[in-house]
Amino acid sequence: MTPGISQLILSLKRLHRLSSVVDLLGWDEQVNLPEGSADFRSEQMAFMSELVHRESTSSEYLKTLMAAEDEIQSNRLSPEFRLVVEEARKEFNRETRLPSEFVARKSAAQSRSFHAWAVARRHNSFKDFAPYLKEQLELALEEASYQGYAREIAYDYWIDRFDPGMNRDIITPLFHSLVEELTPLVQKIMSSSIKPDLTIFKGFPIDQQDRFARHVVAKLGFDFHRGRLDRSLHPFCSGCGSDTRMTTRFFPDHPLDSLFSSIHETGHALYEQGLPTEFLGTALGSAAGMAVHESQSRLWENQIARSRAFWAYFEPIYREYFPNQLSEISSSQLFLAINAVEPIAIRVDSDEVTYNLHIVLRYEIETALFSGDLSIDQVPDRWNELMRKYLGFTPASDTEGCLQDVHWSTGSFGYFPSYTLGNMLAAQIWSTLSSEIHDIDAQMERGEFTQILQWLRSRIHAKGKQLSASSLAVDLTGSPLSHKPLVNYLTRRYSQTYQLIPASIHLT
Amino acid sequence: MTPGISQLILSLKRLHRLSSVVDLLGWDEQVNLPEGSADFRSEQMAFMSELVHRESTSSEYLKTLMAAEDEIQSNRLSPEFRLVVEEARKEFNRETRLPSEFVARKSAAQSRSFHAWAVARRHNSFKDFAPYLKEQLELALEEASYQGYAREIAYDYWIDRFDPGMNRDIITPLFHSLVEELTPLVQKIMSSSIKPDLTIFKGFPIDQQDRFARHVVAKLGFDFHRGRLDRSLHPFCSGCGSDTRMTTRFFPDHPLDSLFSSIHETGHALYEQGLPTEFLGTALGSAAGMAVHESQSRLWENQIARSRAFWAYFEPIYREYFPNQLSEISSSQLFLAINAVEPIAIRVDSDEVTYNLHIVLRYEIETALFSGDLSIDQVPDRWNELMRKYLGFTPASDTEGCLQDVHWSTGSFGYFPSYTLGNMLAAQIWSTLSSEIHDIDAQMERGEFTQILQWLRSRIHAKGKQLSASSLAVDLTGSPLSHKPLVNYLTRRYSQTYQLIPASIHLT
Repeated sequence: MTPGISQLILSLKRLHRLSSVVDLLGWDEQVNLPEGSADFRSEQMAFMSELVHRESTSSEYLKTLMAAEDEIQSNRLSPEFRLVVEEARKEFNRETRLPSEFVARKSAAQSRSFHAWAVARRHNSFKDFAPYLKEQLELALEEASYQGYAREIAYDYWIDRFDPGMNRDIITPLFHSLVEELTPLVQKIMSSSIKPDLTIFKGFPIDQQDRFARHVVAKLGFDFHRGRLDRSLHPFCSGCGSDTRMTTRFFPDHPLDSLFSSIHETGHALYEQGLPTEFLGTALGSAAGMAVHESQSRLWENQIARSRAFWAYFEPIYREYFPNQLSEISSSQLFLAINAVEPIAIRVDSDEVTYNLHIVLRYEIETALFSGDLSIDQVPDRWNELMRKYLGFTPASDTEGCLQDVHWSTGSFGYFPSYTLGNMLAAQIWSTLSSEIHDIDAQMERGEFTQILQWLRSRIHAKGKQLSASSLAVDLTGSPLSHKPLVNYLTRRYSQTYQLIPASIHLT
Repeated sequence: MTPGISQLILSLKRLHRLSSVVDLLGWDEQVNLPEGSADFRSEQMAFMSELVHRESTSSEYLKTLMAAEDEIQSNRLSPEFRLVVEEARKEFNRETRLPSEFVARKSAAQSRSFHAWAVARRHNSFKDFAPYLKEQLELALEEASYQGYAREIAYDYWIDRFDPGMNRDIITPLFHSLVEELTPLVQKIMSSSIKPDLTIFKGFPIDQQDRFARHVVAKLGFDFHRGRLDRSLHPFCSGCGSDTRMTTRFFPDHPLDSLFSSIHETGHALYEQGLPTEFLGTALGSAAGMAVHESQSRLWENQIARSRAFWAYFEPIYREYFPNQLSEISSSQLFLAINAVEPIAIRVDSDEVTYNLHIVLRYEIETALFSGDLSIDQVPDRWNELMRKYLGFTPASDTEGCLQDVHWSTGSFGYFPSYTLGNMLAAQIWSTLSSEIHDIDAQMERGEFTQILQWLRSRIHAKGKQLSASSLAVDLTGSPLSHKPLVNYLTRRYSQTYQLIPASIHLT
């Protein structure tokens, strides 16, 4: 390695050590923090964010960055290392454009807002959360303006933050086509005579659910030696430096929700644990973006963990963990429950078909908030109106409506589209992966997931930021990101489950 | 408040926010950290320590400090605020004398050494830990030399770090007198016909122990709204900014050890939670020193929680939690087990009489290590020799001998004496407290601990660093720190329990 790039990588690793302290403070805030310490933690995180900002915009660091850029000029860097330098420059410019005062102010506001959201959600009181949401939106607009994005395109700034290269021009038509094809599919499923019954799951003790979840996620490849599984109000996965920490939540009468939450987060965690550790903190050791991240979580959660092959292996084990609770539930009832499609209020508990409609709803609200077409006060009404339009009913409360997600409380606007982009990408990846590993079903039936993980590791995880969601789709499948593979996959799987088309058609 | 002191307090609070991030990283390391992340955490803590060091020695901070010092010169500060400035100056000078490079190196070495100790202890392999211990000793000597302490007095530097104003000249004669009086007391107890039986405690489920511990510590006044109770290899209590986190460990056949560990840490935690929150980070909101800290943990653990009055209230509740496990154990068997005196290998599981002999042993080893009279390799032999001298037997292994404590692994030399100084102080405090609260036994019998806590809060906790261990003894009792009240208290309590003297003598 030439001296410039090797010095830059050292500096980036140093910064990563510091920024991952902020990640840990955030994880601890959601998993451990006693309620009375919320304000102090806000101040602590604000101060730390300010320090990260200061370190990553220091003149000393700039010198290191420029020395590496000289090595690009003199053609001494491989494409991989050039990417490291270019991404570091992008990040440096982005950070430099933000005043220190803003960074600290935003961080403190985020923390306060997160706690206000948690309380408002508990009390079903959107009006208590509204001023915080307003502040988060204003901060998001302010940040976009520092980055040179006028109000009309501020939302594109935020989409790009989570998915480099993405914007409304790409997303809007994709989402439009998707809705057009999903709506009739949902209607067909709804009119099928086959009806899953989720009320038959009762009294699954939480500690036992926890043990089974650990069994499953370890089997999928999660490395507990470099990671943890804990509990929090909203499941999430956080790369805390060199260890990956995911959370879930358990309800005695909703064991499948908890299980699939854990598997979803495991998909994220396997991606994090598969990033090249020697390049952590650089573009080569960072996730490509949230759509790619979500493609991994959704692929494990849906394509893999809702398949017949997966349950051929895990059903007997599941019955060993819960002999009494499952004794009255037949295999076909269980499998149908796992593949239940039903419009419900809560996104994270939704099936993989209607899930995307929840995302389109949020995407439309965010678009309207950023353009100024929608005011904060109108959010609950618009939410309920779109729920009726896409899912056919009104949520019982704001707690089950516009207060359900953590994202807005911490200013993570522009994140939601990643979920459905991730679903599209997952379907594209799955079609290639399952054609290249010809005995994939047989492997899953034997509880073997190593080859699948290896495939994802070498084709996706190992590449860091070398491929974006768009270029990854092209690289793996030869086609750009599209709604078609997702629609095909969902149509095939659910036509079979709900007997919408003759079973003689070959289904994968 | 004058502008200089108010600005200094703001700066100190800012520094406290940062240093408490290091505390949290340390807590997380012992409670949560996946094994594979140990090295990364070491680097992370080293970087953070360097940042704390940099911030607390910055020229900007120095200016703030000097402006406050000007207000001392012009007689504008109350004694309390003068103390804040003087302590800040002491701390600044101490920090400034340490090179940044040393601070980072020491922090990284500490973290590595902690993990090496944990493994060595598991494998009963002192030789694997020896190089790390040597490094810790060398770092301790190096730090003392930066502070102007030659090798001959380097140990005094470390004693003073934990207990301002303390040194070997005060401690050695106190410990000598204490050993002289305790040794015959232990012998008398050993030859009593009354023998506690600890083997009758079997199969106390860990989760249930955990629930009972939470019940007890909440009753004593621990505020879960601003604190946590978790599990770790070695119990500890850490002030993580505005919340106080304590840990314990549970063994099914040693429920009393676990319970008294929790109560011990609760004593620390009540002190931390009683420090004036508005002055956190300044001398007025900081613990006076480790001897005072230990006086609080020992007072709750021993004077209070081993008393008849305490168990008059808690025994029925304990039996409700463990009806089967306690069914064959009589009240007098239980009380005798709680007050069992028996020389054993493990300090933290030792009774309050022999405990002090464990401390004297460590004090002698530390003294000899610092003077150079003892080499690292000789530690296990010297340990076992002193065990025979003071406790009458040789530990079965180094795991149960010189590898048992965490302290040396993180370079905390000079800390051990605080435990016995704390025991002395606790006895002195208790004699005043129990004479001022005349119905103290009746209160405890009713499960009321509020007035005791209020007394400790107003007389000790609220004062922060305004009183040291020595001045606190004088302030509360009119006499300097002495071994006598401890000897008297132990003699009274255990003479009664083991019927060493006629019961007609009035015992309190």
